[in-house]
Amino acid sequence: MSQKIRLGAFLPGAGQHLAAWRHPEAQVERVFSFDYYKDLAQTAERGLFDAYFLADSLAANFGGPLNSGRCDKGVGFEPVTLFAALATVTKHIGFIATASTTYEEPYQLARKFASLDLISNGRAGWNVVTSAGDAAAKNFGRDQQLDHQERYDRANEFVDVVKKLWDSWEDDAFLRDKETGVYFDPDKVHRPNHAGKHFSVAGPLNAPRPPQGYPVIVQAGQSEPGKELAARTAEVIFTAQQTLEDAQAFYRDVKGRLAKYGRKPDELKIMPGVQPYVAATEAEARAQYETLSKLIHPEAGLALLSALSGGEVDLSHYDLDGPFPDLPRTRGLLSRQQMMADIARKHGFSIRQLYEWVAGARGHWTIVGTPQQIADQLQLWFENEAADGFNIMPPLLPNGLNDFIDLVIPELQRRGLFRTQYEGETLRENLGLPRPGNQFEGRQRASRAA
Amino acid sequence: MSQKIRLGAFLPGAGQHLAAWRHPEAQVERVFSFDYYKDLAQTAERGLFDAYFLADSLAANFGGPLNSGRCDKGVGFEPVTLFAALATVTKHIGFIATASTTYEEPYQLARKFASLDLISNGRAGWNVVTSAGDAAAKNFGRDQQLDHQERYDRANEFVDVVKKLWDSWEDDAFLRDKETGVYFDPDKVHRPNHAGKHFSVAGPLNAPRPPQGYPVIVQAGQSEPGKELAARTAEVIFTAQQTLEDAQAFYRDVKGRLAKYGRKPDELKIMPGVQPYVAATEAEARAQYETLSKLIHPEAGLALLSALSGGEVDLSHYDLDGPFPDLPRTRGLLSRQQMMADIARKHGFSIRQLYEWVAGARGHWTIVGTPQQIADQLQLWFENEAADGFNIMPPLLPNGLNDFIDLVIPELQRRGLFRTQYEGETLRENLGLPRPGNQFEGRQRASRAA
Repeated sequence: MSQKIRLGAFLPGAGQHLAAWRHPEAQVERVFSFDYYKDLAQTAERGLFDAYFLADSLAANFGGPLNSGRCDKGVGFEPVTLFAALATVTKHIGFIATASTTYEEPYQLARKFASLDLISNGRAGWNVVTSAGDAAAKNFGRDQQLDHQERYDRANEFVDVVKKLWDSWEDDAFLRDKETGVYFDPDKVHRPNHAGKHFSVAGPLNAPRPPQGYPVIVQAGQSEPGKELAARTAEVIFTAQQTLEDAQAFYRDVKGRLAKYGRKPDELKIMPGVQPYVAATEAEARAQYETLSKLIHPEAGLALLSALSGGEVDLSHYDLDGPFPDLPRTRGLLSRQQMMADIARKHGFSIRQLYEWVAGARGHWTIVGTPQQIADQLQLWFENEAADGFNIMPPLLPNGLNDFIDLVIPELQRRGLFRTQYEGETLRENLGLPRPGNQFEGRQRASRAA
Repeated sequence: MSQKIRLGAFLPGAGQHLAAWRHPEAQVERVFSFDYYKDLAQTAERGLFDAYFLADSLAANFGGPLNSGRCDKGVGFEPVTLFAALATVTKHIGFIATASTTYEEPYQLARKFASLDLISNGRAGWNVVTSAGDAAAKNFGRDQQLDHQERYDRANEFVDVVKKLWDSWEDDAFLRDKETGVYFDPDKVHRPNHAGKHFSVAGPLNAPRPPQGYPVIVQAGQSEPGKELAARTAEVIFTAQQTLEDAQAFYRDVKGRLAKYGRKPDELKIMPGVQPYVAATEAEARAQYETLSKLIHPEAGLALLSALSGGEVDLSHYDLDGPFPDLPRTRGLLSRQQMMADIARKHGFSIRQLYEWVAGARGHWTIVGTPQQIADQLQLWFENEAADGFNIMPPLLPNGLNDFIDLVIPELQRRGLFRTQYEGETLRENLGLPRPGNQFEGRQRASRAA
């Protein structure tokens, strides 16, 4: 298999743009309907995307007071149940669901992803997040979130426990010999008996080993502990990068951390987020962008900036068209907060200009142009060690997804940069990732249950 | 709508009988395949069952050492993800998934059931369990389970929190007014702000109010606190009863507890489990039973008795064909354990005879006979205040389910006791249960978010 661009489809509700739902062509009345997501998933599969990606928050996180009612984000389906359902109406596309290491239990998480991987015949991925922000904490018995380092400590151990649980049963543990009455081979079941700083989990898991061995592990942290967690455990990184140079630096940085964990550069695919505005002419593409910007209500814009800083920044007392102020650092999403401040300084943005900029791609790379211009940019990053693929974040759904598939995908295919059919059966195979071995195999005597 | 028998379909893996998987016609090689459950769900829907019911354990609970490998129970799909997938390949049947109040968090549980209810357009039910046994505890950071009363205290509070979360958004909270940019009405969103003995949960939930208001609440406890929890919160009880008199006593007992919670008798449907062995002649039906009994391996039989007592009873040092011994009471499944001892005493069972008896229906009612004989029994219970319906537990799948649908359902229909088509759109409508109102409606000013 020759090396191709990997593509994820990031498809939330009416679209990634904050004001997408207000667009005349947005199908916002369908966003609580399963059929809407069925259409999106089948469309993404038509486009030969590797995976459908869903972000997630453990709070109805509108970023501030609920008084304005102007934001559509944060209320809807739970990703794993939605993907289990979508798996039945698709054949090839993978499903990357976000789930939290801070507020879930490893046993339940391992099990539900094993179940999703079974239901989809090996098309599941887990986006490992630590759920920043106090809003989620307050839904789970805490006044405020754990601090950054502790969240990542816990995340590292959590991923280890989950992998042990997925390895509870060897791939060929189930004999089902009707004659002898032996259902499974007791030498091929392993109790993790994990006892660590954050978790004590005996096991074995009450699910067989997932078809992919492990569902694909995805990570999106940009902080130092986030990058280290990714280098140690992730197979895909979803990252926000603005320029070729920054993306190359990030790519070198993270790929350079793999060797110390005994991993090869190819075992981790780096996929920056991209928000494409594509049309036959650049002017039309730009008009799409402007149309959406004008639909942002100021209250929604401010709530967004607050949400991105973990719900702790209140900008409502500043002049919307004045400069973005210096704010104290919070315990929340440090990397996102820093990015906002950097962007505002770099471009000399007012508060309004900043939220218009953030409202589109939430700090991800935005490309506006013709199919050729967009393909040029993606090719440039792909061929210059800035990206192994991209997570495509259409501003407006379903239009933006259809535009990308109808206009950009054929251009990438003509250039030999993208598949013309799915190569494999599983998400792992399509991404070109190896199926992991079972860490307990060959260690039956030492670790199996008494 | 005239009063009819309600029917649940209890359809685990190869069948409810412990040795079902060894039967020549068992499709045991398919039990980790989604298509197998798709076939079962569509078959149950062909039979016009109200709901597909799945029990659950939070441990690969083979009831003892994993050395023998002789038991097939306890490893497979996670119920909510499986049902989310099955919802897409069915139109009418409900899905009652078991989930634990001891090891889950109310926020996550409320959310995933809301999601299942959305995906299925109002066909979800939640079987509330407290997850007895130390095996589950050890998968969630504890050495042993909470004691019985504490589990039920927690369960009561848990259900209350979940209902508050489901009421976070009023049914008509989402306006989606593109013109004004108002997505939801802030007066119609409510923060539960629950602060209790076991849980602190701010909310609001990040999912809309479920189509059914609340998914149908199901309960199966038989202990004193179990019955009280059911009387206070449940809309369906799944119960194990052996005789008409016992079933009537249980029915009177539980229905009699409703008034003090301001509930009417009809708001709680009592559905004993029934394992039917049905054939054209009684002799053929009896032969089905004997065939399965002979397939039980003694190690599997003993592991089952141990599992039913919470994994704490070891009978392997007793004579299989000697009398069932007196055993110390454990902290585990008190009601089940007591039932085993009572049954053994009543019938003068040896250990082997006891496990043969338990291996079929796990203490539920077993009826062996012709379609007429089985319909007679069900009618007798239904018309004499012993049952509002039944949870049908076929010993062998798919055969036992098909037999019931092809032989018993038509007989019940001829007698006017069972539907000939689904009456409603939702599980709640088919069960004849009212859609609950929102506890926060009309209390906007007092309880909504600041």
